[in-house]
Amino acid sequence: MTLARTVMERCDILATCTEEPGAITRPFATESMRRVNELVRGWMNEAGMTVTRDHIGNLRARYDGSGSGVLLLGSHLDSVRDAGRYDGPLGVMVAIATVQALHDAGIRLPFAIEVLAFADEEGLRFGATYLGSRALAGRLGEDDLRRQDADGVTMSDAIRICGGDPERIGDDRWSAERPLGYVEVHIEQGPVLEGLDLPVGVVSAINGQSRYELTFTGEAGHAGTVPMDRRRDALIAAALFVTVVDQNEPDLVATVGKLSVRPGAANVIPGEVTLTLDVRSPRDGQRREWCEKFLGVAQEIGRRRNVGVTVAPISERAAVQCSPRINALLRDAIGQGAVEVSSGAGHDGVYMSEVTDIGMLFVRCKGGISHNPAESVDEADVAVAIDTLSRFLTLL
Amino acid sequence: MTLARTVMERCDILATCTEEPGAITRPFATESMRRVNELVRGWMNEAGMTVTRDHIGNLRARYDGSGSGVLLLGSHLDSVRDAGRYDGPLGVMVAIATVQALHDAGIRLPFAIEVLAFADEEGLRFGATYLGSRALAGRLGEDDLRRQDADGVTMSDAIRICGGDPERIGDDRWSAERPLGYVEVHIEQGPVLEGLDLPVGVVSAINGQSRYELTFTGEAGHAGTVPMDRRRDALIAAALFVTVVDQNEPDLVATVGKLSVRPGAANVIPGEVTLTLDVRSPRDGQRREWCEKFLGVAQEIGRRRNVGVTVAPISERAAVQCSPRINALLRDAIGQGAVEVSSGAGHDGVYMSEVTDIGMLFVRCKGGISHNPAESVDEADVAVAIDTLSRFLTLL
Repeated sequence: MTLARTVMERCDILATCTEEPGAITRPFATESMRRVNELVRGWMNEAGMTVTRDHIGNLRARYDGSGSGVLLLGSHLDSVRDAGRYDGPLGVMVAIATVQALHDAGIRLPFAIEVLAFADEEGLRFGATYLGSRALAGRLGEDDLRRQDADGVTMSDAIRICGGDPERIGDDRWSAERPLGYVEVHIEQGPVLEGLDLPVGVVSAINGQSRYELTFTGEAGHAGTVPMDRRRDALIAAALFVTVVDQNEPDLVATVGKLSVRPGAANVIPGEVTLTLDVRSPRDGQRREWCEKFLGVAQEIGRRRNVGVTVAPISERAAVQCSPRINALLRDAIGQGAVEVSSGAGHDGVYMSEVTDIGMLFVRCKGGISHNPAESVDEADVAVAIDTLSRFLTLL
Repeated sequence: MTLARTVMERCDILATCTEEPGAITRPFATESMRRVNELVRGWMNEAGMTVTRDHIGNLRARYDGSGSGVLLLGSHLDSVRDAGRYDGPLGVMVAIATVQALHDAGIRLPFAIEVLAFADEEGLRFGATYLGSRALAGRLGEDDLRRQDADGVTMSDAIRICGGDPERIGDDRWSAERPLGYVEVHIEQGPVLEGLDLPVGVVSAINGQSRYELTFTGEAGHAGTVPMDRRRDALIAAALFVTVVDQNEPDLVATVGKLSVRPGAANVIPGEVTLTLDVRSPRDGQRREWCEKFLGVAQEIGRRRNVGVTVAPISERAAVQCSPRINALLRDAIGQGAVEVSSGAGHDGVYMSEVTDIGMLFVRCKGGISHNPAESVDEADVAVAIDTLSRFLTLL
């Protein structure tokens, strides 16, 4: 059986580990994660690696090299609700397969490889993302540990039940020599590679992101009795704003994903509309400039329509640049026609960039669909990803 | 005490009859309606009228004339949830005050007056409107009687508990000679009279109304990973439509009052948007023409944005023209500067028009606000309404 076939089958097996029968839902520190870790630990051992588990619940599997230095590979094993089978697990399975190839050939590289299988990236259970990589970056605090899930269980207790010691979560922080880098294979979650007819691509940056909540406040009124020119319709103002968010600036994406109308009755003029604005770009300057532009237009629409506009910033995250050195090697490993694309979604690399240089290899996925049972990846593309990662190791 | 002052005080007293302490909420066939009917029956008697109660629960108070023929006056005594104190009750109180003036002066007109105090117009309890006037028009059927309220009580049982006989609801139908007309005094529920600085106005027509539900179906996707030019964002298509509904055609009002986004998360491109379209006009031709125009633009936006658009018609109600004969007399009664305005809201006149010619007199209300505790009417304007109605009676 080829390594790519093995990766595909292992992704299928992991997909059966779930908290919701009939769907893939695998939150942090659950029975389904325990089963997944047990399976993955076995495959890591098969590939000649020694495996430890840290307090947060990440598996760390080491394949020794002939010299000093360590390269980190990895991704996460948890999932969103009703997920696909590749977002996360694929990266861990490709990393193990790549080590398996070395092990099968009896090859030791001049450096060690450590495969990281993160316990949480999606944040489904506690509403806080990147728990696994944040533990490695030493960025998990008391506030996080006190978080409660929907049943009132604290993160501390969840960690303890799984065999970790929340008091010693600080020990999870990477304290050895600075690694040579962290490289993650992940499905693209977008349609760019498919559009270019390419199996894999190098990630230039993990986009920065700004999120806002905007409230448009007009005046509710009877939909039959208030003449058009006497209205202060909050929804019309909000709709004008939504159409502005639809722009064509290269690399920039902007989305109004949530919008609610009050009072929200067919026969009442909307008095208040609340909506979210999500803006992402690989370039922080571009992102900030366009956020200002969007929010300025919102105020201008408000003035023109006699509708109040308030803006609440929700979150801001700077872009994380992938290492030019690692990316040059990944491009060489791919060969002619290698492209770089930016990642619109966040990844463990965001926090791993605090530990070391990062690089990412995207694998084409069907229709760009992710966070969905319809997530789909071609075995042939997985074979290319394994080959690329293997060649990268020889170039490093 | 002036008649206008009496009307204001009676509206205040009726406002204390409610199912919700601290608010005015008076649904059909409730204890609060029983108390209101008891009070109103007393005031009708005081004004020299003989009062009966029909099966649906309308009060019918007769003030005999010297000759044959009967003029109907009236409005409704029920309310919406958390209502104001004038929408409905004002019309009944003004009608009683006008008869009181005749009674006090010992005047008999050449025709009888029958004041109708309708048991339901708003439809709060059973979700079916105009129960009172529909009973008079013989338009209440078995389907209506089987309707259930939020507690599972059928309309039949509610009628029976209040002393009516649901089996004999057909007897409520107006079966005497065709009346001379039905005239209703009502707050405007809009800002037109206030804008013209006029206390009262004649209603030209009760606007026709079309209501639709539109669904825009695009494709949900990750807000970070799908490039703008690969998106099929249902909300952008819907927003373009909302901005089109905002037009300046005279007399026509169009409203998107309800809009919901699926899946409705800040980081997900909207895949589906459902919204309501409500279009009203005093001219049915104009309303139909603009509905076609709006729905055509929706389809065109859908084609242009590669977003599916489906339209479900929800309801359609033709405009009801007020009687030119009655309106001429109402204008004469007002005197110089009388204006006609159309009614964007529905009224009992919609069904009373099946029984006889109708006319309506609107009274200015503050800010055009209605269906709201802030509903407000000036005593001086009420005095004008009583005078106008009294003069109208002498002109008929």
